[in-house]
Amino acid sequence: MNAASTRKPLLNVLAGNREPVPPIWLMRQAGRYLPEYRELRARAGSFLDLCFTPELAAEATLQPVRRFGFDAAILFSDILVVPYGLGRRVSFEAGEGPRLDPLETPAAIAALPPRLDPSVVEPVYEAIRLVRCELAPSVALLGFCGAPWTVATYMIAGRGTADQAPARLFAYHEPEAFGRLMDRLASASVEYLVGQFRAGVDAVQIFDTWAGVLPAAEFARWCIEPVRRIVAAVRAEVPGAKIIGFPRGVGTSLAAYVENVAVDAVSLDWTVDPGFVRDRIQSRVAVQGNLDPLALVAGGTALDRGVDAALASYGERPFIFNLGHGILPETPLAHVERMVERVRRAA
Amino acid sequence: MNAASTRKPLLNVLAGNREPVPPIWLMRQAGRYLPEYRELRARAGSFLDLCFTPELAAEATLQPVRRFGFDAAILFSDILVVPYGLGRRVSFEAGEGPRLDPLETPAAIAALPPRLDPSVVEPVYEAIRLVRCELAPSVALLGFCGAPWTVATYMIAGRGTADQAPARLFAYHEPEAFGRLMDRLASASVEYLVGQFRAGVDAVQIFDTWAGVLPAAEFARWCIEPVRRIVAAVRAEVPGAKIIGFPRGVGTSLAAYVENVAVDAVSLDWTVDPGFVRDRIQSRVAVQGNLDPLALVAGGTALDRGVDAALASYGERPFIFNLGHGILPETPLAHVERMVERVRRAA
Repeated sequence: MNAASTRKPLLNVLAGNREPVPPIWLMRQAGRYLPEYRELRARAGSFLDLCFTPELAAEATLQPVRRFGFDAAILFSDILVVPYGLGRRVSFEAGEGPRLDPLETPAAIAALPPRLDPSVVEPVYEAIRLVRCELAPSVALLGFCGAPWTVATYMIAGRGTADQAPARLFAYHEPEAFGRLMDRLASASVEYLVGQFRAGVDAVQIFDTWAGVLPAAEFARWCIEPVRRIVAAVRAEVPGAKIIGFPRGVGTSLAAYVENVAVDAVSLDWTVDPGFVRDRIQSRVAVQGNLDPLALVAGGTALDRGVDAALASYGERPFIFNLGHGILPETPLAHVERMVERVRRAA
Repeated sequence: MNAASTRKPLLNVLAGNREPVPPIWLMRQAGRYLPEYRELRARAGSFLDLCFTPELAAEATLQPVRRFGFDAAILFSDILVVPYGLGRRVSFEAGEGPRLDPLETPAAIAALPPRLDPSVVEPVYEAIRLVRCELAPSVALLGFCGAPWTVATYMIAGRGTADQAPARLFAYHEPEAFGRLMDRLASASVEYLVGQFRAGVDAVQIFDTWAGVLPAAEFARWCIEPVRRIVAAVRAEVPGAKIIGFPRGVGTSLAAYVENVAVDAVSLDWTVDPGFVRDRIQSRVAVQGNLDPLALVAGGTALDRGVDAALASYGERPFIFNLGHGILPETPLAHVERMVERVRRAA
């Protein structure tokens, strides 16, 4: 990994170095805004068939890199692979998002198996091996998982929710059982991320999409602490493993996150105050982000200004250009091209 | 106003003084969690009939103060009174939230009238006068309005939206027209708040519920700047007017808000980092908040811990106890009683 990292701009930034041209990739870059993805998705049958057929998942992973020349490919998959690998039923209804059997009792939590089902995760590792063979040496391959808190919000409610109230209430009513769920998800995440590294990813990102709904004490207990342990345990198995954290929407608590979780970079949502980030975050770790995905939809002056603001705010130190959240399906391809060109020309 | 303020704990805090027992009220305290409110609402007909019938609005305003002995009454009304007073059609569908004629073009913005329709706002002022007569001298009466950005998110989309994307996109595509909408809403808000003060409120709160979805530059332009002008213009008409700002969910940008908007207090959502607030916010202005509304639903240990955390974090300096957002309809009354008792006993 270390020999290769010198040739991959993204890994060089994760090692704490500034790249003159910031490496660029986009969250959810393998997705519905791409016509070739929509075509592949139509061929695959269900969303899960696409995730668990290595050739198709590899193809989805490679599509945006081929089209835009991004500096990283991110494995096409879903954060709900972990509950699926723990025996929970998961499905994706068209236009409705994920559906799971709700996990509603301490007994159901205690009954979760200790390890991931190999038949669920092996196809993911195989997709990684396939992508690895196809990727240019300068392009980093990223794996990922959801953070235990965010994964638990779906497991408990059985679906996506506007305010994550079911998991928040469960954690208030049953803190011990909820703590056991965090432990179980943390071990499963370690197993999963280590498996991804062994299959060939260069770095991983831990997505805590719903971290922003918790009070500070609960954020420390349910977000910082499990992710801190995941990072340490992954590095015990994979020395020097490069890890990006994305506690989305946590605002002022970003500082506590980077002080306690030894990530190599933190991904920024589009609402953070740049002065705060420069003073409290970028002084400790590399940062990634944070164009408003709607500025990319809007295009024109709004897009140019957003790109310039991110470069001006963070470009003087180790920085990976990205969006502040996943790319939206309605994003015009021409706007993505314009963005990539502007980032690379500005340097 | 100044003579009375010495007897109202809430106004004393807004004047920059610590009260040994922090004054307490709850956002949306006149609402569906109260059986007497549900009964009144059933009698009133529509939600707007309740808002615009002074006797009924006054009664809704007084109900929670009678039941719980809160230190403030907040006018029962809605932030969409302003667009309604500007001639936009507004209705509330049961279980679906507000519906408005979407405001979709620069021409429609230019056609907004210069002043609020007196037949819309006079009943609100009359409700204030009625409440004023009924209220004990120690209880503060609060008026309010929505901040221009938040009101615009409803006016442009014609409804509540998950991500405020219609207004965000409009502002990216048509910044000049959107700026004129902000100007119009800012003047209407000044007119409305001054009218509320003249009718008898002791202080007002400006709710910027959706401030947290904007990048820093847009937050400065569409939230900070219009609210800064509203505060200054209201004080030009009502010297010493006490004003609480609530830019919800803005995290790290709270510092920029209090540095630029001369509010007397800032209301905190439940996700802020207490250390950041003590260092950067409470050193400048009084704070209000910030119990997680779901901790109040949960009750028990979760509630006690949440109350204690807020008191420990902010109680040593000027502080108003409140929730971090509106009280939820499913909140048990016994939990509200327990919370009030714990806040008052802790002092």
